[in-house]
Amino acid sequence: MQSKTVDLSHGTGGDKSNELIKLIKKNFDNKILNKMEDAGVFAIGNTKMAFSTDSFVVDPIFFNGGDIGKLAVCGTVNDICMMGAKPLFMSLAMILEEGFSQNDLLKISKSIAQTSKKIGIQIITGDTKIVGKGKADKIFINTSAIGIVEDGINISASNACDGDDIIVSGNIGEHASAIMMQRNNFKFKTKIKSDCNHLNELVDIMLKVCPKINVLRDPTRGGLAASLNEIAQSSNMGIVIDNTQIPISQQVKAFCKILGLDPLYMANEGKLISIHPHRYTNAILAKMKKYTLGKNAKIIGKVTKNKKDVWIKSESGSLRRLINADLEQYPRIC
Amino acid sequence: MQSKTVDLSHGTGGDKSNELIKLIKKNFDNKILNKMEDAGVFAIGNTKMAFSTDSFVVDPIFFNGGDIGKLAVCGTVNDICMMGAKPLFMSLAMILEEGFSQNDLLKISKSIAQTSKKIGIQIITGDTKIVGKGKADKIFINTSAIGIVEDGINISASNACDGDDIIVSGNIGEHASAIMMQRNNFKFKTKIKSDCNHLNELVDIMLKVCPKINVLRDPTRGGLAASLNEIAQSSNMGIVIDNTQIPISQQVKAFCKILGLDPLYMANEGKLISIHPHRYTNAILAKMKKYTLGKNAKIIGKVTKNKKDVWIKSESGSLRRLINADLEQYPRIC
Repeated sequence: MQSKTVDLSHGTGGDKSNELIKLIKKNFDNKILNKMEDAGVFAIGNTKMAFSTDSFVVDPIFFNGGDIGKLAVCGTVNDICMMGAKPLFMSLAMILEEGFSQNDLLKISKSIAQTSKKIGIQIITGDTKIVGKGKADKIFINTSAIGIVEDGINISASNACDGDDIIVSGNIGEHASAIMMQRNNFKFKTKIKSDCNHLNELVDIMLKVCPKINVLRDPTRGGLAASLNEIAQSSNMGIVIDNTQIPISQQVKAFCKILGLDPLYMANEGKLISIHPHRYTNAILAKMKKYTLGKNAKIIGKVTKNKKDVWIKSESGSLRRLINADLEQYPRIC
Repeated sequence: MQSKTVDLSHGTGGDKSNELIKLIKKNFDNKILNKMEDAGVFAIGNTKMAFSTDSFVVDPIFFNGGDIGKLAVCGTVNDICMMGAKPLFMSLAMILEEGFSQNDLLKISKSIAQTSKKIGIQIITGDTKIVGKGKADKIFINTSAIGIVEDGINISASNACDGDDIIVSGNIGEHASAIMMQRNNFKFKTKIKSDCNHLNELVDIMLKVCPKINVLRDPTRGGLAASLNEIAQSSNMGIVIDNTQIPISQQVKAFCKILGLDPLYMANEGKLISIHPHRYTNAILAKMKKYTLGKNAKIIGKVTKNKKDVWIKSESGSLRRLINADLEQYPRIC
């Protein structure tokens, strides 16, 4: 009998990814890892800290709105921010293919230095490995980040409560659209720009208005659909979102329509979902809208104990289930 | 003019590696990173912590004495141990090639789980990326580790002092020999086993006898030669080692002789160098020899302010400079 192999669908961020992660974790006995948060949280004395890792294999490595270096810093910083952590320290590990341009390496390193400086996170440890020509694709970057979670903040994918409001911080689908547009060399009139950005300042502003935010999540691989499904499952709650309220730019709408793609499944790299008690919504939304990265923020739905899974209300008012991604629409998006 | 590219010699751990790292760090302004330690050290309140990252691209992924999973856990744990840290938390990120066997993935994951359990380090965050067939070689693993450095411990590659003794914890060259033997399918009578192992317990024992150890270093890529050169340079001291005292097994000696390799440049994955005041040497050595991983420990040399660089004394008593590795003898050793 031939042994099963890993295929591209295991990288979706959806159900097939979860299958593979289950296989990897089969021999692990670990409560923190099993929580499937964006970051692991631990305590040193009385100080709560968040720790997260991500490898970046995006293709192309330079794209409209960023590059693999900026993405590698923002992506991992955003993961610890989704636990409410303030980013402090970062590691940087590169796997380079023999023959990779030193000029491109310098450009990417510069982008990493600039982005980490903006965020105020210090890169304090690193590693570089070189593999032979054809044994990797140009450059892969891994970053891990450490941050401090302040007292009183308790954010988790499992904390969504009945009646909580759901806000998304801006237009969705931009990162995946930008990458696909460039990768396939589509000739559209306007180029879509990746939303690749760091969310630490936005989270900071939001937590000042409402330290009682229950869930934060950045809908990267698998898009809004994967993140909402994870939250519903972890919290053992239902989620209902309103299709008419989801912020999407005209460009992304048009791009997706032409290619038959669903923006709800498309990766974002500078957006977040906030789930919090209804009474804080107006204050949070007002603050978010004053900040560039939150100016298109919208209330998109509610958490309910009366349902399971994630449901989406259409223009006509009918409900359909928003299932998890199970096919890889676009590999190597991040 | 054609732009310069990255080549395999940039992965030696020697001078060419340092050139590449200099390029990557060109835009960074960071005191901790510039120290070039095995791990970055920072403080949270009064608690000193060490943080390190490493990517593993070893080929073959299963070898005599270990596999890429065991190596990925031990390698990064050893890096924080070299700052005197007790390992606590780890991240695990995998890049998988489309078509990689799920059975092999399960074996590697099991090895990771077993090794981390033995060490007592918890894997609390992870990531998995899949790239297309031919865009990576089977599996690459990145781990990052966090540990606590207890009060009074102050270990650094820059701390070697005039008159300090240098101990190496056991026979050198075993990891690189094992990998090369297997990769090239050499038919020797006896197989050389990689020394791949975690050094946390050995370091623990040593620090109990002598909390005043000045330098610890695990001589991985670039071998003993690269580590000693880094220490001499960071400490602005000279190092003199005695060729007759360096512990090498008969098998590794024979293997290196036949292939014309120098074991001083060959990677180890379960050995350490300790540099400490002379008065502690007998006590440290006695303790080390009682422990399996230290039973072949030897005093190999001394630190001196009267020289620069690293020097090796031959059987006849003559001195020659032990320069850094500058050619890649064997890529993808770790």
